Amino acid sequence: MTTSAYLSGTAHDIYEAIRADPIVSPHGHCDPRWFSQNHRFADPAALFVIPDHYLFRMLYSQGIALERLGIGQSAEERDARAIFQLFADHWHLFLGTPSRIWLDHSLRHVFGIDDPLSSASAGAIFDQIETALARPEFRPRALYERFNIEVLATTDAATDDLAAHRAIAQSGWGGRVIPTFRPDAVLNPEHDGFAAGARAMITGHGGDPGRYDDYLAALRARRAGFIALGATASDHAIEAPATHWLDPAGIGAFYARAMKGDLTGPEAQVFYGHMLVEMAQMSLDDGLVMQIHAGSRRNTNAQIYRRFGPDMGADMPLATDWVRGLEPLLNRVGNDPRFTLIAFTLDETSYARELAPMAGHWPCLKIGPPWWFHDSHAGIARYFDQVVETAGYWNLAGFNDDTRAFLSIPARHDVWRQGVALHLAGQVGRGYFAPSDATRIAKELSTGLARHSYRLTV
Amino acid sequence: MTTSAYLSGTAHDIYEAIRADPIVSPHGHCDPRWFSQNHRFADPAALFVIPDHYLFRMLYSQGIALERLGIGQSAEERDARAIFQLFADHWHLFLGTPSRIWLDHSLRHVFGIDDPLSSASAGAIFDQIETALARPEFRPRALYERFNIEVLATTDAATDDLAAHRAIAQSGWGGRVIPTFRPDAVLNPEHDGFAAGARAMITGHGGDPGRYDDYLAALRARRAGFIALGATASDHAIEAPATHWLDPAGIGAFYARAMKGDLTGPEAQVFYGHMLVEMAQMSLDDGLVMQIHAGSRRNTNAQIYRRFGPDMGADMPLATDWVRGLEPLLNRVGNDPRFTLIAFTLDETSYARELAPMAGHWPCLKIGPPWWFHDSHAGIARYFDQVVETAGYWNLAGFNDDTRAFLSIPARHDVWRQGVALHLAGQVGRGYFAPSDATRIAKELSTGLARHSYRLTV
Amino acid sequence: MTTSAYLSGTAHDIYEAIRADPIVSPHGHCDPRWFSQNHRFADPAALFVIPDHYLFRMLYSQGIALERLGIGQSAEERDARAIFQLFADHWHLFLGTPSRIWLDHSLRHVFGIDDPLSSASAGAIFDQIETALARPEFRPRALYERFNIEVLATTDAATDDLAAHRAIAQSGWGGRVIPTFRPDAVLNPEHDGFAAGARAMITGHGGDPGRYDDYLAALRARRAGFIALGATASDHAIEAPATHWLDPAGIGAFYARAMKGDLTGPEAQVFYGHMLVEMAQMSLDDGLVMQIHAGSRRNTNAQIYRRFGPDMGADMPLATDWVRGLEPLLNRVGNDPRFTLIAFTLDETSYARELAPMAGHWPCLKIGPPWWFHDSHAGIARYFDQVVETAGYWNLAGFNDDTRAFLSIPARHDVWRQGVALHLAGQVGRGYFAPSDATRIAKELSTGLARHSYRLTV
Repeated sequence: MTTSAYLSGTAHDIYEAIRADPIVSPHGHCDPRWFSQNHRFADPAALFVIPDHYLFRMLYSQGIALERLGIGQSAEERDARAIFQLFADHWHLFLGTPSRIWLDHSLRHVFGIDDPLSSASAGAIFDQIETALARPEFRPRALYERFNIEVLATTDAATDDLAAHRAIAQSGWGGRVIPTFRPDAVLNPEHDGFAAGARAMITGHGGDPGRYDDYLAALRARRAGFIALGATASDHAIEAPATHWLDPAGIGAFYARAMKGDLTGPEAQVFYGHMLVEMAQMSLDDGLVMQIHAGSRRNTNAQIYRRFGPDMGADMPLATDWVRGLEPLLNRVGNDPRFTLIAFTLDETSYARELAPMAGHWPCLKIGPPWWFHDSHAGIARYFDQVVETAGYWNLAGFNDDTRAFLSIPARHDVWRQGVALHLAGQVGRGYFAPSDATRIAKELSTGLARHSYRLTV
Repeated sequence: MTTSAYLSGTAHDIYEAIRADPIVSPHGHCDPRWFSQNHRFADPAALFVIPDHYLFRMLYSQGIALERLGIGQSAEERDARAIFQLFADHWHLFLGTPSRIWLDHSLRHVFGIDDPLSSASAGAIFDQIETALARPEFRPRALYERFNIEVLATTDAATDDLAAHRAIAQSGWGGRVIPTFRPDAVLNPEHDGFAAGARAMITGHGGDPGRYDDYLAALRARRAGFIALGATASDHAIEAPATHWLDPAGIGAFYARAMKGDLTGPEAQVFYGHMLVEMAQMSLDDGLVMQIHAGSRRNTNAQIYRRFGPDMGADMPLATDWVRGLEPLLNRVGNDPRFTLIAFTLDETSYARELAPMAGHWPCLKIGPPWWFHDSHAGIARYFDQVVETAGYWNLAGFNDDTRAFLSIPARHDVWRQGVALHLAGQVGRGYFAPSDATRIAKELSTGLARHSYRLTV
Repeated sequence: MTTSAYLSGTAHDIYEAIRADPIVSPHGHCDPRWFSQNHRFADPAALFVIPDHYLFRMLYSQGIALERLGIGQSAEERDARAIFQLFADHWHLFLGTPSRIWLDHSLRHVFGIDDPLSSASAGAIFDQIETALARPEFRPRALYERFNIEVLATTDAATDDLAAHRAIAQSGWGGRVIPTFRPDAVLNPEHDGFAAGARAMITGHGGDPGRYDDYLAALRARRAGFIALGATASDHAIEAPATHWLDPAGIGAFYARAMKGDLTGPEAQVFYGHMLVEMAQMSLDDGLVMQIHAGSRRNTNAQIYRRFGPDMGADMPLATDWVRGLEPLLNRVGNDPRFTLIAFTLDETSYARELAPMAGHWPCLKIGPPWWFHDSHAGIARYFDQVVETAGYWNLAGFNDDTRAFLSIPARHDVWRQGVALHLAGQVGRGYFAPSDATRIAKELSTGLARHSYRLTV
C-alpha cells in the first residue's frame, strides 16, 4: 500500500516481499456493526479524533480540555470542523509519535491527500475527507476489501449477543469478521456488574447462579457460541498477570462470596486468577487461543474517569512479573500440546528477562507483538532486539494492530512490516543469516505466524 | 563553544543551529557565594577532583583511598599537586565515561589546553590551570558571562537565609542566579534535624511549632521568600516517589508525633508523602514549578558515610514505581492548569513504561532530562529512544546540568546538544519528519522547553 | 580461530588484535573428568544436543518431547543419528539465536564442515563428526590445546572429592584445569540434602555437626582443599541476591534449626544470606574471589522437573534488587581491599541502574559479563551500552563462557571478541577515544580483566 523511501538495500528488498501481503488482524477493537450495517463513517472529527485516545491524551497533556475535542458530547452538540481545526493546530505535538505516522499514512493512502496537515490546510483536508466519506468506496466493507484484509477479529464481552457478527455471517458478504471472547467482566469480582452479568449469563443458559458448576457450564456455552460465529481466541485484560489454582473443595464458598459482592482486594484477585486457569483448561477442550494483555492500570485519573468513563487516555503501564504470575497456570496446562497462550506486555523489561525465556521453553506460550505504546518504530526495534536471541522467531505471534481506528489498520501493519524489514536487514548485515532466510522469516512475521498462532489457517 | 568532528550531515547541521545557544540552567548545585563574592577558584585539585563525586567514586572503586584525594581534609592538610597527579595517573579509568568527556572539554575550551591529560602532562597542566585561575577572566562572574549563561538556578535548603542570593541581587551585576526551594529537611521526619529545623522555621515566622497550620504557613512564607529572590521552582530528592493524602482530621496528630521524633519508618514516609501533596497544592497558588528527583538510595556505604558524610559516591539507584507513587498527588492537583511537575528518574525502565505515558496524559507532568548516571551520550540516546514516541517532545522539560562542577556546565550542555542533533538526524533519516521540523525541535530541546517548563521566560 | 567478514574498518582492526588471544575461561561447567580421563567424546547427539539446554528447550517450546531427543535416556536406549536428524530438521528455529552461531562456528572451525546444517545434510554431517571424534586430535586434552586455552575453571560442589582435579594435577599434562568452590548445597537450608551434606562435610573434617563453629571450620577447610588444587574463586547461584548479617548470639539457634530441617521460607533465606556474608569474610583470609549468579528461578516447570530433574531449560529470570540485597554484605566487607566480588545478573535493567553505579563505587565489586540468555550479540551490545559510561572498563570482569558445551568455548569467546570490537569501534567513531585506547581496552576485555579479576595471573 505504500513505499518507504528511507528503506534501502536489503531492507527495501525484504519490505517489498511483504509489503502487499494481505492483512491478518487477529486482535483489535473495531465495531462489528460497521460491517453488519455498512453505514458510512461520520465526519473527520468522529473518524479520527474523538475515538482515538492516542490523540486526545496528547492534546489533553498540553492543556486542551476534552470537552473542546467533543469527548463525551453528542454529535449534535459538537462542531466537527472546529474540533478538526483544533487538532490540526496542535499537530506539531505529535512529531516523533506513531500517531502522526499513522494519520499521515491514512490521509495519503486512504484519502489520497498529499498536502501536509497544518492549521492552514485543516479546512481543506476536512472537506476532502468529508467528500470521500460520502462515497460508497469509503464504506466499511469496501475499505475492508481495499485494505486487503484476510480476517479481522473484534473483541466482545462474554455477555454480548453477537448480533452483528450473526448478521455479517448471514449477509453473504465475503469478509471474515470474527468475534473474540472477552469474559473479564464475568470473571473478575471487582468488575462493575460482575454478579449481575454472571447471573444473567448463567440463567440465560438455564443454570442456577448459586452453583459454581453452572457458572462454569455457562462460560463453556458462551465460548461455544463465540466459536460458532468464527471465534478462535479469547482475551483477558488484567492489571497484573497473577494466576492461582484453588482447592476444588474451597472454590464453591469463594464463588458464593464473589456473587454476593463479598470478595474484594487480594481475595478477588485470587478468584480471578483461578478463573484464568479455568479458562485455560476450557481451551484444552474447545481450542480457543488464550490471550493475556497484562500490566495496564486502568483509569488512573479519577476526575476524568468520573466525568468521561474508561479508555480516556489515563491507563498506565506497570512493572509486570510474568514468571511467578503465570506459574500456577502453566503448571496446570502449559505442557499440553492443545493449548496456546499469547502474552502481551507493556513492561518491555519483561521481553528479554521473562517472556523470551518462557516462550523459549513452554510449548503453549507465544509472545504477542509490541503492544500499545510500543507499537511504534522504536518499540518494534527494541522488541526484536530483546526477544529474538532467546525465543527465536517461531515463538512469536506475528503482528496484530489492536485498534479501534479502522483506517489506521493498513498504516499499522505497514509500520510493522517496515520494522520487520529493518530488523531482518540488520541481521543479514551482521552475517547472522542469509537474505533467503530473512525473506522466509519476513513472510512469517507478516502473516504466517499470526495465522498459525491464532489458528486462522482453517 | 565547541565543534564536534564526528557529527556529519544532518546531525552536524542541527548541532550548528543550537551549538551557540545561551545556556539555560534551571537546576543545579553551584554555590551562590561564588557569584556574590566572585573570589577566584582555588587550585586544580579543589576545582576538579575534590568536589566531584563522579571522579573520586571511580578512583575509590579501584582501590584509591579517599584520604589520598584530599577528601575530608582542609586545604592546608592536602597537597593539591600530588592529588592532581594521582588523578591523572588513573585517567584511563575514565575512558568511555562522560566525566572524561566533560573534563577534556573544560581543559580545551575553558583553559585552552590541547595536550591530553596523562601522568606525563599532569604537572604542566596543573601549572597552566593555576596560572589561569589567578586571572580575572577566570573568576566566577567572568566565566558565567563567557559561558553565555542566561540563568542559573542553585538549590537551597528551606531554612537557608539566601544571603548570597540577596547579595547578588543587590550587587548590580547582570547575571541571573536564582535559588530553588528544597525543603526536604523540614518535610521528612526521618531527616536529621527535622524537628529542630521545622521549629526554627516556624518560630522564625512568628508561628507556634505545635500547630500544623503554622507549619504550613511558615512553609508558605519561605516559598514566598524564595520567589522574592527569583525562584521559580521547588525541588525534592526522595528515595521512592510515594505520595499520600491524609485525612485533615488526622494530620494534626501525625504532625505532633513527627515533631516529637516519634514518627519513623512507613509512617514517616506517609507523612512525607502527604507533605509532597501539600507542596503541590501550594504551587497552585504561588506558581513554583515542582521537581521530584526520585529513586536514589543515599549513603549506602555506612563506613564512608560515618567518616566523610553524604555525597561521597555511594548513592545508588533503585527501581521506581511512578504510577502508583504519584497517583495520590496527581489525583489532587494533576488536572489543574496552574501546576507543573517535573519528574527525574534513575530507573530508565520507567521512561517508556511510566513517565512517557503519564506525561502524555497529565497536563501538569513533564519528564526531566536524563539524570545523573544517565546524563551521558548513550544515556541521552536511550532517553530519546524511549520517551519520544509516547510523550512527544513538548512534554519534556529540556535539559538541566544538575551539577556543582561549574566548569563542566558548558561541556554538559554541549554533550546534550550533540545528543539532540544525533537523535533528530536519526528521525529525519528514518523519514519521521523534515529537517525544518528537526531544527524547530532542536531549539526547543536546547533552550525553549527549559525556559517554558521552569517559567523562566518572564 | 575465525574471521568475521562483516566486521570492517576499525572494528576489523580491533578484532584482529584480539582474535587469536588465548582463551581465559574462569567460570564454566565442563566436566573435569574429560581432562583427567581424556576419553573420546561420544556421538554427535551426546556431544551437541542432549546436554545443551539452550538447544532442547527451544525444540521443546515447539512441541518436541524431550524423550524424542534422548533426554533422560541411557546411551543404549537412544538413537543418536535419529536425534541429530530431528534436531537438524528444526534448525530453522534457531535462526537469530546465539546457539545457531555457536554451532555453526563449531562445525566449521572445530570439524572443518562448511556445508550448512539442514535436513538434507544432517546424515553426512553426523558421519563427519563421528569420524572426527574417533581421532586422537579430537580428544579433550588435544582440543584444549588446539583451542589455545590458558586456564579453564570448572564448578564443583563443596562436598566434591576433587578426584578428577587431583588426577589432572598429578598427570603431568600441561593444561590448567582448576576447580571452583560452589557450596550452595551446604549453605541453603532449602536445598535438597542440605543437612546431610553439611553433616558429612563437618564430620569429614573431624567436627561436631551440632556446633556452628565446626560448620564454619569445615567450610574453611573445604575452601583450602579447593585452593590447594588451584581454585581462585567461589561461586553462588541464588534466586535473589539477598544477604543478611545475624547477631552472633543468635546464629547458633538458627543453625540448629536449619540442621533439623526446621528452617524454611524467609527464615531459610535469611540464614543463607548470612552464610553468603560468612563466605565473603572467609574470602578476606583465603583470597577466593566470590561470584554471585543471581536472579534465576530454577525448575519452574514442575512436570519436567519431576520427570527429568534440574537444568532442563525451565529456569526463568526474575527482576533483581542488587542495591538492597547486597547492602549487608558490602557493609561488612565491601571496603576491604582483599575482597573481590563478581556479580552476574539476568535482569538487564540492573546493569545501568544498579550494578554499574555499585561497581563504580565499591572497591570489591566487578560486573560479570552478559550471562546466559544475554551471552549473545545483542546482549553484549546492550551490556556495553549500559555499563561502561558509569562503571568504566576496569570495573568489568572480562568474559567467561559459563558453559558445559566444551566445543562451543572458542565460538563463545569469538562472539564476545566480535562484540568488543564492534563496541569499541563505535566509541572511536563517536570520538570518545583513540584507536590506540580501543586496542588497549580490547586486550583487557579479551583476557586481561579476566586474568586480573579472577587472580589468575600468578
